[in-house]
Amino acid sequence: MATCGLVEYDQAPAEVRAVYDDIMATRGTDWINNFWKALAHHPATLRRTWESVRQVMAPGALDPLTKELLYVAVSATNQCGYCIASHTASARKAGMTDAMFAEVMAVVGMANETNRLASGYQVEIDERFRP
Amino acid sequence: MATCGLVEYDQAPAEVRAVYDDIMATRGTDWINNFWKALAHHPATLRRTWESVRQVMAPGALDPLTKELLYVAVSATNQCGYCIASHTASARKAGMTDAMFAEVMAVVGMANETNRLASGYQVEIDERFRP
Amino acid sequence: MATCGLVEYDQAPAEVRAVYDDIMATRGTDWINNFWKALAHHPATLRRTWESVRQVMAPGALDPLTKELLYVAVSATNQCGYCIASHTASARKAGMTDAMFAEVMAVVGMANETNRLASGYQVEIDERFRP
Amino acid sequence: MATCGLVEYDQAPAEVRAVYDDIMATRGTDWINNFWKALAHHPATLRRTWESVRQVMAPGALDPLTKELLYVAVSATNQCGYCIASHTASARKAGMTDAMFAEVMAVVGMANETNRLASGYQVEIDERFRP
Amino acid sequence: MATCGLVEYDQAPAEVRAVYDDIMATRGTDWINNFWKALAHHPATLRRTWESVRQVMAPGALDPLTKELLYVAVSATNQCGYCIASHTASARKAGMTDAMFAEVMAVVGMANETNRLASGYQVEIDERFRP
Amino acid sequence: MATCGLVEYDQAPAEVRAVYDDIMATRGTDWINNFWKALAHHPATLRRTWESVRQVMAPGALDPLTKELLYVAVSATNQCGYCIASHTASARKAGMTDAMFAEVMAVVGMANETNRLASGYQVEIDERFRP
Repeated sequence: MATCGLVEYDQAPAEVRAVYDDIMATRGTDWINNFWKALAHHPATLRRTWESVRQVMAPGALDPLTKELLYVAVSATNQCGYCIASHTASARKAGMTDAMFAEVMAVVGMANETNRLASGYQVEIDERFRP
Repeated sequence: MATCGLVEYDQAPAEVRAVYDDIMATRGTDWINNFWKALAHHPATLRRTWESVRQVMAPGALDPLTKELLYVAVSATNQCGYCIASHTASARKAGMTDAMFAEVMAVVGMANETNRLASGYQVEIDERFRP
Repeated sequence: MATCGLVEYDQAPAEVRAVYDDIMATRGTDWINNFWKALAHHPATLRRTWESVRQVMAPGALDPLTKELLYVAVSATNQCGYCIASHTASARKAGMTDAMFAEVMAVVGMANETNRLASGYQVEIDERFRP
Repeated sequence: MATCGLVEYDQAPAEVRAVYDDIMATRGTDWINNFWKALAHHPATLRRTWESVRQVMAPGALDPLTKELLYVAVSATNQCGYCIASHTASARKAGMTDAMFAEVMAVVGMANETNRLASGYQVEIDERFRP
Repeated sequence: MATCGLVEYDQAPAEVRAVYDDIMATRGTDWINNFWKALAHHPATLRRTWESVRQVMAPGALDPLTKELLYVAVSATNQCGYCIASHTASARKAGMTDAMFAEVMAVVGMANETNRLASGYQVEIDERFRP
Repeated sequence: MATCGLVEYDQAPAEVRAVYDDIMATRGTDWINNFWKALAHHPATLRRTWESVRQVMAPGALDPLTKELLYVAVSATNQCGYCIASHTASARKAGMTDAMFAEVMAVVGMANETNRLASGYQVEIDERFRP
């Protein structure tokens, strides 16, 4: 963990290197960002988290860019500094333009506003919206 | 507000009716959901909120479906019951399939998980991710 | 706790009754709301929480109405259903009008929106705002 | 946006300058804080956000100081570093004393505590608190 | 998903039944709670989520009761009604007494309070606490 | 408060020193961390907060290490930088190993994920989980 420093590739045990290799191959890059180097202190968490992220972010009914925009939206809602920085970068790599970023932020802002208005006004769910 | 009941079209003053008419025309529907009927107790809030939502949700660099998916993602992150119900319905109307919904939820879940891992491990932002 | 039912005055042990009596005397009412009846399963929590609330909500540099408005604002931001209902009622008793409630909600909505814009855009704190 | 730097007055297009001028005139200041300079990359967001803030923060049923205290309370609840710094400064300018700030924080702290107690104990809303 | 109803064992496809069987075997029960029946509309999410939960909640450096208490603490902080109800039940099954529950809630309440005091007062991290 | 600097022992009035002395005696240390020095600008808040923390964190049905783990879990969920740093340090002092920390983070991550899945899928509480 960060409080213990980061696990660099050269010092990493084999099971950690295997995950790092898979991250770089999947992303087509030659470096590992700090998030994974911090998790690597607990190899089981590193492996499980990476495999879940890889599965969830793979193209499916939604394309990779849309998934990255959703990740940015959640991270901005939670105000996670690291995650905003890293996923804004990933989203740009996946094709997010400045205009798209601005529209994501505008939706995130409005949704955070109206979520509190709906809760604060104690609005009941309309019959038509019930499952 | 809900604590005062909802403002129905027939009882609404002219300035509220004008907003209701614009909501229905913009959405191509003939009804108003409870959120707006609650805000209508304060016509200035009703008008400002509606005009902001209309502007933000209009097609631009992102299409309306992507914007609705983002709204669902934020509402699920904030756990706003009314907003999850109403925006899941809007997103379906805009074309969200069951498979898309499931993928939105999967990304929302992972982002909420990794946001806390990044914060809890006190991960520093990589140089490459800095603005 | 609610999962064990609520502690009613008649069944309550002496240490719980003493707190209930102080709540009713401080508020000038003859009933106890469910929040306290749930906490009463753990008398130490009941006493500590009540004494803190009584101290914090007493008139000081801010008047009781302003404090209740702040309580409503926090509860709406956190989307706590029970707290929104109970503190909206307390605020009305302390003098909150419909117009005041609507303005509190408008500020809460805008603050929740701009909080995410500031975080999402990674805005640096201006020199003039630094302590 | 911050990842693109900030839009300074001298470089700003006319539509951005018009908003900056209005911000400075409304606030009686001769500078623009970073939040607006970041939003200025998307002039429609800048204009909409500023006009909403100006409308919401104008004196009405609540005075400007009370509105600033509410903004600080929401920002502290959401733990938005930028917003806490900037709105603590605005609130001081509007008349917030050290004692008022301490009481706002005390209410914010208690409300955040009791919000979780009410939710964690699954307390049902009292009949008297229902709309 | 709940908006589509729940997937009952008898209607479930083989891949879903396999997960349900593993849940019941791992927990030593003969029923499946609604959370898994809702996820089952997307079998990949069901399988991934269950396998992660099973791995994370298994005994390790922390015993199962401590892990359930942590789950309750997070769910109460996030104010997730379903999760509070289901994990309070799991925690009781794992040995949580009424007194333990009350102490978990007391810590959750204080932590939520002091988190906002630390943020609101803009307290700098002490040198000794830095990694 | 931090915006006014920190109240050091030597400058502190008697009522603040008394609390500082109690903090150091209770913790068996000879220093005070910044959180308390910031609160000390408002002695009533300092005293009330410290007495509540001391009462809540004392050994009871749960041991001090478990309570510190819960504090870390809440702070990571809320993403409070100061609180994560200070309570990770306290938890280590109380006996938290690297493996325990990693398991706390793993539970915190999963709980934050499944909280949103349960809310987003609008899962109804099972009869068996109702109080």
